[in-house]
Amino acid sequence: MRQINIAVIGTGRIGSVHTRNLVRSIHEANVVAICDIRLEVAQAVADELGIERVVKDYHELLEDKNIEAVLIATNTDTHAFIVNDVAKAGKQIFCEKPLAIDLASTDDVLDTIEKTKVKLQVGFNRRFDKSFKRVREIVTSGEIGRPCILHITNRDPEPPSFEYAKSSGGMFLDMSIHDFDMARFQIGEIEEVYAIGNVLVAPYLNEIADVDTNIITLKFANGTVGAIDNSRQSVYGYDQRLEVFCSGGNAIAGNENENTVVMGNKGGYHSAKPPYFFIQRYADGYIEEVRQFLQCVRDNKPVSPTGQDSRMAVLLGSAAWESLRKNRPIRMKEFKG
Amino acid sequence: MRQINIAVIGTGRIGSVHTRNLVRSIHEANVVAICDIRLEVAQAVADELGIERVVKDYHELLEDKNIEAVLIATNTDTHAFIVNDVAKAGKQIFCEKPLAIDLASTDDVLDTIEKTKVKLQVGFNRRFDKSFKRVREIVTSGEIGRPCILHITNRDPEPPSFEYAKSSGGMFLDMSIHDFDMARFQIGEIEEVYAIGNVLVAPYLNEIADVDTNIITLKFANGTVGAIDNSRQSVYGYDQRLEVFCSGGNAIAGNENENTVVMGNKGGYHSAKPPYFFIQRYADGYIEEVRQFLQCVRDNKPVSPTGQDSRMAVLLGSAAWESLRKNRPIRMKEFKG
Amino acid sequence: MRQINIAVIGTGRIGSVHTRNLVRSIHEANVVAICDIRLEVAQAVADELGIERVVKDYHELLEDKNIEAVLIATNTDTHAFIVNDVAKAGKQIFCEKPLAIDLASTDDVLDTIEKTKVKLQVGFNRRFDKSFKRVREIVTSGEIGRPCILHITNRDPEPPSFEYAKSSGGMFLDMSIHDFDMARFQIGEIEEVYAIGNVLVAPYLNEIADVDTNIITLKFANGTVGAIDNSRQSVYGYDQRLEVFCSGGNAIAGNENENTVVMGNKGGYHSAKPPYFFIQRYADGYIEEVRQFLQCVRDNKPVSPTGQDSRMAVLLGSAAWESLRKNRPIRMKEFKG
Amino acid sequence: MRQINIAVIGTGRIGSVHTRNLVRSIHEANVVAICDIRLEVAQAVADELGIERVVKDYHELLEDKNIEAVLIATNTDTHAFIVNDVAKAGKQIFCEKPLAIDLASTDDVLDTIEKTKVKLQVGFNRRFDKSFKRVREIVTSGEIGRPCILHITNRDPEPPSFEYAKSSGGMFLDMSIHDFDMARFQIGEIEEVYAIGNVLVAPYLNEIADVDTNIITLKFANGTVGAIDNSRQSVYGYDQRLEVFCSGGNAIAGNENENTVVMGNKGGYHSAKPPYFFIQRYADGYIEEVRQFLQCVRDNKPVSPTGQDSRMAVLLGSAAWESLRKNRPIRMKEFKG
Repeated sequence: MRQINIAVIGTGRIGSVHTRNLVRSIHEANVVAICDIRLEVAQAVADELGIERVVKDYHELLEDKNIEAVLIATNTDTHAFIVNDVAKAGKQIFCEKPLAIDLASTDDVLDTIEKTKVKLQVGFNRRFDKSFKRVREIVTSGEIGRPCILHITNRDPEPPSFEYAKSSGGMFLDMSIHDFDMARFQIGEIEEVYAIGNVLVAPYLNEIADVDTNIITLKFANGTVGAIDNSRQSVYGYDQRLEVFCSGGNAIAGNENENTVVMGNKGGYHSAKPPYFFIQRYADGYIEEVRQFLQCVRDNKPVSPTGQDSRMAVLLGSAAWESLRKNRPIRMKEFKG
Repeated sequence: MRQINIAVIGTGRIGSVHTRNLVRSIHEANVVAICDIRLEVAQAVADELGIERVVKDYHELLEDKNIEAVLIATNTDTHAFIVNDVAKAGKQIFCEKPLAIDLASTDDVLDTIEKTKVKLQVGFNRRFDKSFKRVREIVTSGEIGRPCILHITNRDPEPPSFEYAKSSGGMFLDMSIHDFDMARFQIGEIEEVYAIGNVLVAPYLNEIADVDTNIITLKFANGTVGAIDNSRQSVYGYDQRLEVFCSGGNAIAGNENENTVVMGNKGGYHSAKPPYFFIQRYADGYIEEVRQFLQCVRDNKPVSPTGQDSRMAVLLGSAAWESLRKNRPIRMKEFKG
Repeated sequence: MRQINIAVIGTGRIGSVHTRNLVRSIHEANVVAICDIRLEVAQAVADELGIERVVKDYHELLEDKNIEAVLIATNTDTHAFIVNDVAKAGKQIFCEKPLAIDLASTDDVLDTIEKTKVKLQVGFNRRFDKSFKRVREIVTSGEIGRPCILHITNRDPEPPSFEYAKSSGGMFLDMSIHDFDMARFQIGEIEEVYAIGNVLVAPYLNEIADVDTNIITLKFANGTVGAIDNSRQSVYGYDQRLEVFCSGGNAIAGNENENTVVMGNKGGYHSAKPPYFFIQRYADGYIEEVRQFLQCVRDNKPVSPTGQDSRMAVLLGSAAWESLRKNRPIRMKEFKG
Repeated sequence: MRQINIAVIGTGRIGSVHTRNLVRSIHEANVVAICDIRLEVAQAVADELGIERVVKDYHELLEDKNIEAVLIATNTDTHAFIVNDVAKAGKQIFCEKPLAIDLASTDDVLDTIEKTKVKLQVGFNRRFDKSFKRVREIVTSGEIGRPCILHITNRDPEPPSFEYAKSSGGMFLDMSIHDFDMARFQIGEIEEVYAIGNVLVAPYLNEIADVDTNIITLKFANGTVGAIDNSRQSVYGYDQRLEVFCSGGNAIAGNENENTVVMGNKGGYHSAKPPYFFIQRYADGYIEEVRQFLQCVRDNKPVSPTGQDSRMAVLLGSAAWESLRKNRPIRMKEFKG
């Protein structure tokens, strides 16, 4: 089996997870270098994993002919220009989601990808979760008829810091974006979006006109109707559920809990919560998405989800903001972002 | 314990259920007469239950001083005038929901009730379901903080006949009306409604501009956001679920299934469906609502839910139709029905 | 539909349940008289239910040609002689379990039944529970192969009074007896019994050499092996579960809980307990067993479970005591009680 | 953090799992060599994981001062002499369970361990499963009172080959042995054992007087009673469950299933099976047990479970055979193996 020589740019929280996965769990990969502008952060990861080459400036990697693929896990606001540079260097790209939270930067990247013909896979890791994939398999098989209603529940354990929230694009762009992608993954294209929301648990979000609780309704091109509900504060853990209701049945993906123990006592039955947050919950999905990327690189097959999927998710998130602000449904055909 | 002498008007499907409950399970009641314009229908119920007096015309009952309370379970389009007559005769009234599907008739009834000072309880039986009541207890106790998100799933087993659908007021008024009432029961007053919907399983509904699948989003006065999802065709049985998500936790009422058996085989685990429809699912609720009504009559306490609750549910259903047709959110303050 | 004229002898705890069921829920029955040596107890039940005839001495009922069937729910130690008398009077009999806790009395009754040719159904109500029946249906259908392992969990909410325990025959005869019958119902005849047990929660049981916690293993004639576990003190409610594991799968009947609500908070998920005890848990089973009895009387079909089933359950309970005391397995073929 | 230089002897099915875990997931380890008498098997694992030194004869490793610890995962019948040799070479030992299936060899090994003072941990991996650990935490905390009943369900997906079964020591020694250890882990010492069993699914086991289905009852020193049930053929996957019922409640560890999806259709609800077998089910336990071993080596702390635990499990398995053959309970105090 041919291994792909890969470099990682950005080895912070999620970048270090990807790097560990590449070294320990993804046999298709050979990690030849890692990079972080905080060199000591990259060095610590390299020491832990026995990676020999560590660089501070990603430009150093671009000329290395030995590097076939690059995984980008830097801050979101740097994705666009790094992807541009890496694509122009002719390397295959896996980039954390989203490419950018503005459409202009996103379109610029997509343009580069089209011209350079490199592969670009975007890190919508939830598509690789075994339960969400199983729901999609059931639904697309047709065994329970045509989809009628989609319901996605996505609730974070606690609100983001004020600093983070200020530059994240807000709840629809840093959080619901996953659900827009999941909705498209499960059902298909979305024609119209309507969003309601409120500040109920993190009052400081009022200062930046963000919300912490929302419901977004969706009209799909195939007639299915959908609802996403989001909260920034789920005290019982990261709540990640999904239902597709169809004309011949339904398929529900529930939470994975910390253990299977049920304790009974005078007060009733008690059982364990879901894990705290995405790193634990989607540990396997983070591996599977990168494994698939490398297999596509190796076998020269098309990757998925693509930069276009990232663009659609950002466009939908922006439409949700427009809807919330104007308090009216937004038709995607007419919405230019 | 003083028993209340009660008569039942309308002994068809749900009226016969109420009559059986009154005779067999509700010790507070003494059924002195039953009435149906199809006399043979009433007679069969009377024979089964040993009820002595059977009449065809409800006016006969109005002058009977011995009758203290009346349960009305006739067709919806007759509720308003029967309630008016019975109220004017000074009898306490339990009436199946809704009082009427138009606001003018409803207001007329409410006016009569106000003038005659009789009690009027409306049959929103789901408020008396033990699991939905338990959710409300948890939420209103404050032990899991303030409510943030409400989600109600209400799906019928199969679409109504064309005949029924033509005069029922359509999906928002014959089906979602239960959910509007449940939403108010769980969370409080609703300020704004937005509805989307489609015909996906019963094409004949297109002829009357009805829908068979919908999602309705709600903004509550207290800041909570809500979503209702409805379908006319749930092949795995009557799907009746509810979640209230709060700042300090959540409370979910699931389905009650036909039995508790889980069978494992090569294909996985298999378990039983919910019961077919409302008569089975809410059997206990139908008893509890009437028992409470009779206790309130006996003890001269205020009943609930009231005619005003019926009016609000109808108003919300009408607003949902307005929203669907105009494709915009409807503010209840501005909506006159 | 012909109704059966029935009298009830013994209207205490379980007798009053049966009487209410006969009047309210079992259309096949016409309750013509009830009897209790504490006349005021019977009178109160009669008043509640509108039963006209109340007697203190059951002999009064025996000559009444109008009475076709009798339900006996007196103290266990009176079952045998009452059944004898009623059988000799030619009436069909439903008797609470067991007929007697000693084999001599049981055999005497069985002899009378054989001679008088009346029907005798014994009140092993759990055979009529919808979930246990469903397990049996699955297993006997053969769809999951041949049975290999049976496991029954039967745990009472709290220990019996010392007074009750003294004359009940002890844990194997007043409690495990249900499980012996269930084991035979699910799998078939039992060839060997081995019992272990201990006093762990109710120390006063040591005085009468009873136990409060036990496990009984069973060898069935068809090769299946089984285990019953019992406790006198289940603080989370009446624990009633059953598994049949087969060569091609398994079938598990779980508990029915008080409601379906799951509450999540910082401490995890919390859900409702099973109901407190048998009157709640087997409410439907108590109705179904008597309904079936009356249908068999009406249609002149054989009843089940029979007096012979009661004898087998008592014999197995006695064998369990023998096993516990001698600390060795007991072969049923060699055990004479 | 100091890493421990470790070698692996035996890199077949479970040995290769351990080696991968050591390299990829256990940072406390530095794998310096691996060994298998089938050199090509070891070489393939070494190639996959980048391990430099591969040997065929484990004696080569004994003199290597650089090797501090050895993990032994060879065939069971070689454990005893390899452990002896490795212990005499002064190296810390993790050995797959059991040390031997006969007590003489086991005692010989325990004697060597006592003399050489090396650490010896035995691979009862289920003690490291998060759900079984959680049950033990709950029970030993005392929050649900004293333990009364233990029930362990352990069912393999399919019967072993005739070849394997012939030399494995039979069902009680190759399969129930895990349950004996789990029983001691959860509750404590066992005083008496009684076993029943049968050949119901794999007729060829009759030839070697083995069984494929069994129930073992246990009396514990602290008064708790227990039952283990085992089958060689669970078609719905590897069934691994456990209940400890206590005077103040219970704690149940259920199966972990392949995904969380529940599909509803006309036939009811359908959900996923447990994973196929132990390598999938206990993947995390295999990592945790070796991690703890290495931490104890590093910090010079006592290991657990020990060789003595292996001896007890083997003794109990042998007692179960004795019980089955003689059809009587076996007191451990009097049983010499």
